[in-house]
Amino acid sequence: MSSVGAAALHRFIAGVYASVGVPAADAETVAALMTEADLNGADSHGVFRLPQYVRRIRAGGMNPRAVPRLVEERAAAGLVDGDNGLGHLAVAFAAKVAIEKAKTAGVAWCGVRNGNHAGPASLYARMPMQAGMIGMYMAVGSANHLPPWGGLELLLSTNPIAIAVPSEEETDVVLDMATTVAAYGKVKVKAQRGEMMPEGWMIDRAGNPLLDPKRANEGLLLPIGGYKGYGLALMLGLLAGTLNGAAMGSEVVDFNADDTSVTNTGQAILAIDIAAFGDPALFRRRVDALVRELRESERLPGVERIWLPGEQSALKRREREATGIPVPAPLRATLDALADQVGAARLGA
Amino acid sequence: MSSVGAAALHRFIAGVYASVGVPAADAETVAALMTEADLNGADSHGVFRLPQYVRRIRAGGMNPRAVPRLVEERAAAGLVDGDNGLGHLAVAFAAKVAIEKAKTAGVAWCGVRNGNHAGPASLYARMPMQAGMIGMYMAVGSANHLPPWGGLELLLSTNPIAIAVPSEEETDVVLDMATTVAAYGKVKVKAQRGEMMPEGWMIDRAGNPLLDPKRANEGLLLPIGGYKGYGLALMLGLLAGTLNGAAMGSEVVDFNADDTSVTNTGQAILAIDIAAFGDPALFRRRVDALVRELRESERLPGVERIWLPGEQSALKRREREATGIPVPAPLRATLDALADQVGAARLGA
Repeated sequence: MSSVGAAALHRFIAGVYASVGVPAADAETVAALMTEADLNGADSHGVFRLPQYVRRIRAGGMNPRAVPRLVEERAAAGLVDGDNGLGHLAVAFAAKVAIEKAKTAGVAWCGVRNGNHAGPASLYARMPMQAGMIGMYMAVGSANHLPPWGGLELLLSTNPIAIAVPSEEETDVVLDMATTVAAYGKVKVKAQRGEMMPEGWMIDRAGNPLLDPKRANEGLLLPIGGYKGYGLALMLGLLAGTLNGAAMGSEVVDFNADDTSVTNTGQAILAIDIAAFGDPALFRRRVDALVRELRESERLPGVERIWLPGEQSALKRREREATGIPVPAPLRATLDALADQVGAARLGA
Repeated sequence: MSSVGAAALHRFIAGVYASVGVPAADAETVAALMTEADLNGADSHGVFRLPQYVRRIRAGGMNPRAVPRLVEERAAAGLVDGDNGLGHLAVAFAAKVAIEKAKTAGVAWCGVRNGNHAGPASLYARMPMQAGMIGMYMAVGSANHLPPWGGLELLLSTNPIAIAVPSEEETDVVLDMATTVAAYGKVKVKAQRGEMMPEGWMIDRAGNPLLDPKRANEGLLLPIGGYKGYGLALMLGLLAGTLNGAAMGSEVVDFNADDTSVTNTGQAILAIDIAAFGDPALFRRRVDALVRELRESERLPGVERIWLPGEQSALKRREREATGIPVPAPLRATLDALADQVGAARLGA
């Protein structure tokens, strides 16, 4: 497997977008975010998605020249219409709105409608964190793979939530999780590798465990904690979708199968200014102390290390900043074909 | 099992509190909230907890004359110091602050520190909902029963989250869940009934399934979705505890075992004014449509009904409003003894 430097990957992504009509500044913004996703180890949510996004733009399903705009506004609330453009643009815009408002209001929430798939949830929860705040992000997934608890119809998605909390000296604490036991991307990886899934990931339509990932399209993902994960997926969808006038339930378009229908994807972001609750440095030191207490606590037999949310991603990032982002041969071939097709430069080293 | 009307239960609780020095208005407030918990079916979080709260007041561990006050304030943020009083008072005060601020700011968040156990999470998520808003509530649990993922030390609690979303004609959608597979109260109920726990609730200190609830104090609760639930419990604790300067990790006092130490319990509440995002009536109708779509969708073999979060509680409430709140004989005996001890009137019918 070859690898590629972050700068080269960024250049490649921006070049591909520019060649399909995305304005240069927007192409840069999205390229930076997608490269960030790959650096952080979100392999199924970075450049891996580029062919799909470009296919949608070329099919007329996504607007390359979208201009997200604020359509509702209060002192601590906003609603962004993504103009059916690249999801990253709308959510990054919403994050900026939330951060700016939180600076004075203390806390602010910004929703998105008429957006699209925006990559890994943690990207956006990190934005308030990079401004010294706590960030929370939730999204309606871009394809339904989850039935209501006890049901057979795929009316819900793996609706993810991410929460990012800054520390002082320790690795920042960043949770990024789907509300299903396994994200659908993990099922796809098992299928590619010819491996079986563990029990608990999926069931078939009779309610029996489904272990063969090649039969995934006959199956149903299971939510975390049974009915609890179902409830959480539903509530996150109400907050990130329904509240914003975005798609939920059967309105959700499967963006893997359909390149032309407007997805009206919804997301929401919350920014919490730590200074509104006390001394931010004291807070970050308390986070450090808690992280250390958890990490250094006694372990179950056979457990080598207790991980904090975000630590594995941070390790991967350091590794990839040093040695590059791995690009498996099939992905590189797909990206080369994409570059040739749209007349952009191929991915360099 | 006898049962009791809501008005009689309310009177009883208020009388007990008054007899241990809680001012009449506060006794009324807390009695109303605890009665509400019992009406909604939260049996382990209503009057069941009264002896424990009173014991703590009498032991000097909780301040009966507490006056919660706002110690930090911004347009959309607040921090309440609960003055180490009854948890219900501090959180109800925080909810009022959040609702008032959200009316103008669109969204508002209020944290609590120096509080105490406040009963079921859904009580407080419902407060913004009763004001036509969406409510979210999170809390640091009042005893640690959860280790970090892979760990043995009980450094985390079952930190719950509740989210309440109003509908138009359907039952409101109200999720109230602990981040562990089973709340600790469910383990206690199994022990009382002499039943075994299902696999997946607890493990022993060697990492093997623990099925005997009588051995629960040798065991560890399991989080929902494994490392995901651990991450969620941690993040909720950072938001509801650490951010407010309230207890987290090893600072959490086990309020079952210790009646005198100040618990410094933390909670947080978020109020979202639906009108800041669009037409509230349209939103509620979209919630109705989603609820119906989920409920009426195709079911797995053997499943009689698809439930929405909050529906079972709403059914229980209607039943209890009609026929009273069931009071098992051992609970009645405990409450009678409590009344006699503090010189209050016994629970009527």
